[in-house]
Amino acid sequence: MASSILSDCSSSATSRLLPLRRALLAPAPCRFRPTTAPAPPRRPLFVAAQLPLLPRTRGMASVSAATAAASTDSATVSADACAKIIDGKLVAKQISEEIAVEIAKMKDAIGVVPGLAVILVGSRKDSQTYVRNKKKACEAVGIKSYEVNLPEDSSEDEVLKHIATFNSDPSVHGILVQLPLPHHMNDENILNAVSIEKDVDGFHPLNIGRLAMQGRDPFFVPCTPKGCMELLHRYGVEIKGKRAVVIGRSNIVGMPAALLLQKANATVSIVHSNTKKPEEITRQADIVIAAVGVANLVRGSWIKPGAAIIDVGINPVDDPESPRGYRLVGDVCYEEVSKIAGLITPVPGGVGPMTIAMLLSNTLESAKRIHKFK
Amino acid sequence: MASSILSDCSSSATSRLLPLRRALLAPAPCRFRPTTAPAPPRRPLFVAAQLPLLPRTRGMASVSAATAAASTDSATVSADACAKIIDGKLVAKQISEEIAVEIAKMKDAIGVVPGLAVILVGSRKDSQTYVRNKKKACEAVGIKSYEVNLPEDSSEDEVLKHIATFNSDPSVHGILVQLPLPHHMNDENILNAVSIEKDVDGFHPLNIGRLAMQGRDPFFVPCTPKGCMELLHRYGVEIKGKRAVVIGRSNIVGMPAALLLQKANATVSIVHSNTKKPEEITRQADIVIAAVGVANLVRGSWIKPGAAIIDVGINPVDDPESPRGYRLVGDVCYEEVSKIAGLITPVPGGVGPMTIAMLLSNTLESAKRIHKFK
Repeated sequence: MASSILSDCSSSATSRLLPLRRALLAPAPCRFRPTTAPAPPRRPLFVAAQLPLLPRTRGMASVSAATAAASTDSATVSADACAKIIDGKLVAKQISEEIAVEIAKMKDAIGVVPGLAVILVGSRKDSQTYVRNKKKACEAVGIKSYEVNLPEDSSEDEVLKHIATFNSDPSVHGILVQLPLPHHMNDENILNAVSIEKDVDGFHPLNIGRLAMQGRDPFFVPCTPKGCMELLHRYGVEIKGKRAVVIGRSNIVGMPAALLLQKANATVSIVHSNTKKPEEITRQADIVIAAVGVANLVRGSWIKPGAAIIDVGINPVDDPESPRGYRLVGDVCYEEVSKIAGLITPVPGGVGPMTIAMLLSNTLESAKRIHKFK
Repeated sequence: MASSILSDCSSSATSRLLPLRRALLAPAPCRFRPTTAPAPPRRPLFVAAQLPLLPRTRGMASVSAATAAASTDSATVSADACAKIIDGKLVAKQISEEIAVEIAKMKDAIGVVPGLAVILVGSRKDSQTYVRNKKKACEAVGIKSYEVNLPEDSSEDEVLKHIATFNSDPSVHGILVQLPLPHHMNDENILNAVSIEKDVDGFHPLNIGRLAMQGRDPFFVPCTPKGCMELLHRYGVEIKGKRAVVIGRSNIVGMPAALLLQKANATVSIVHSNTKKPEEITRQADIVIAAVGVANLVRGSWIKPGAAIIDVGINPVDDPESPRGYRLVGDVCYEEVSKIAGLITPVPGGVGPMTIAMLLSNTLESAKRIHKFK
């Protein structure tokens, strides 16, 4: 079911109330394009390649022609959109193929395949779907999956016991505890118990600290922000010296995305629920990463002409015309912003597919590090 | 001796060349006020109290009337300056008095005094002076000092052995390794060996990670950025919802200062050597923390009228009129900026005295946490 707190900027949808705590960030109802929006230019700031560029991730193989031709159904593009669409589905497919090649090489050379353990507590439908998708993605590239399903009323100690077992299992190179955990458990205690060397989610504070510090590198970069950066890299977006705005400051996306942009020498500003006039600061950005979880928050009038827009939001909005009664939209009003930006990710088909691809990448990296395989 | 790479914005000094890597950030020679500077208003954005406000640091006692009256020689103020001067020397003195009261109470109640261990390797004159000053400051408030002096050619193992001894010594609550270490030593290995519970410098990546994350708190906040925040708090500067710019992104000041401002709900941007037009973004800030180590970089034309300016820089510039042949200036051109800002720290007498005060505060905090004393 779509939440009733979400808004929509499509011409067919009605605007809805936002909760009070988000009032500062609430967009005005958008049935038509605001008159304050700058006139859309036809010249993007960034020159996007016709197809994603050759991979820049360390240790990854080059893109196959077959994959390049395989781009399918990303987002529907308005006829008057001028932004180049960043095809996350295609890039994720490329990366998975590159990972499969690396894993085959590793297996041939040292007889080891990477292993990923997932711990799922409870029976939330969405969590079960995520875990199933992760398992399928692992199988497709040759990563061995380990799975533990615990009942909702399990104790914290039971979860910790399984983490300890995986920590000491040499065939497991990555451990992932599916969130959210049941309310009676302490997320911090549980996530901190995962060995820093197998924390493929990159959520451990030691990883975040190393990410924040100059001259240090984390063992793992959190998957979604890593996916955002990979999209920027593969589409040839220059980051050094550019102004970047990250909207949202969550521990899992916004904050690490800002640290990554900063490490890549962008000048970074973080916009959040206490920011006054977020549109003014966002309009200065050459690169925008929106990760706030508010449907269609970022409007055309927020965007610098030609900017690169990465939309992390996946928000359900009511849609009586859809068979499910709702559809998924991002934090960015695609209809408006695609007419002004130079590059934009669609929702779905943008950042979404990258998260699992980056999890596979982190698991492979971990196995290579542990086995000193280059 | 003053470095020849530094520039000066006073009317009596000559401008000097900046190194190439800092060219983007290099100020133009400033013998007169640039014509692009906005006209200085007489209305500060922030209403500063006549004396520092009552302390807001947790667990600190209130300011004494005697201390409040004891403000002495901070910076020389131009006759036409309109900014309120933030008196770091006075605030540091207040805080030290508050700490002394707390320590006396703790000793009476549980018979424990906080202990701070300092490890000094080599015989650098500046390091010896810092360590001597820290020892004196500890004695003044009742913190017990432990000191180890090792010769320049000591091995990393010798340093690690002393750290291990202090880690397990229950009378030591804070451990500080004086930087810089000799070149043959690995700073990261040595700093990481300090127990996270005694890392009063707050430089451990785990502490930085906790500082970056929402819903987590570090064991210790690095002393200089903590001092900057304390000055803002005690002078009644509202942070939530304000635009803040941090100039510089070092691990020990700029980066943690940005994380602290962000935790206090400012909208933070970080300006660094790759930032284009740093003056444009700085001019949007209600709060500026300058920590880049370039004399007089921040000019009047960079500042929003009425902004609060915290200048962390301590840079020597040649001054034939001074008995030492040089004098100390900040990263901010005080002469120009004090006419435009609402609040400003002088150099010396601003942030400098706060760093040691915060080290004492962290050591007391540590002892209270270890002994569960409230």
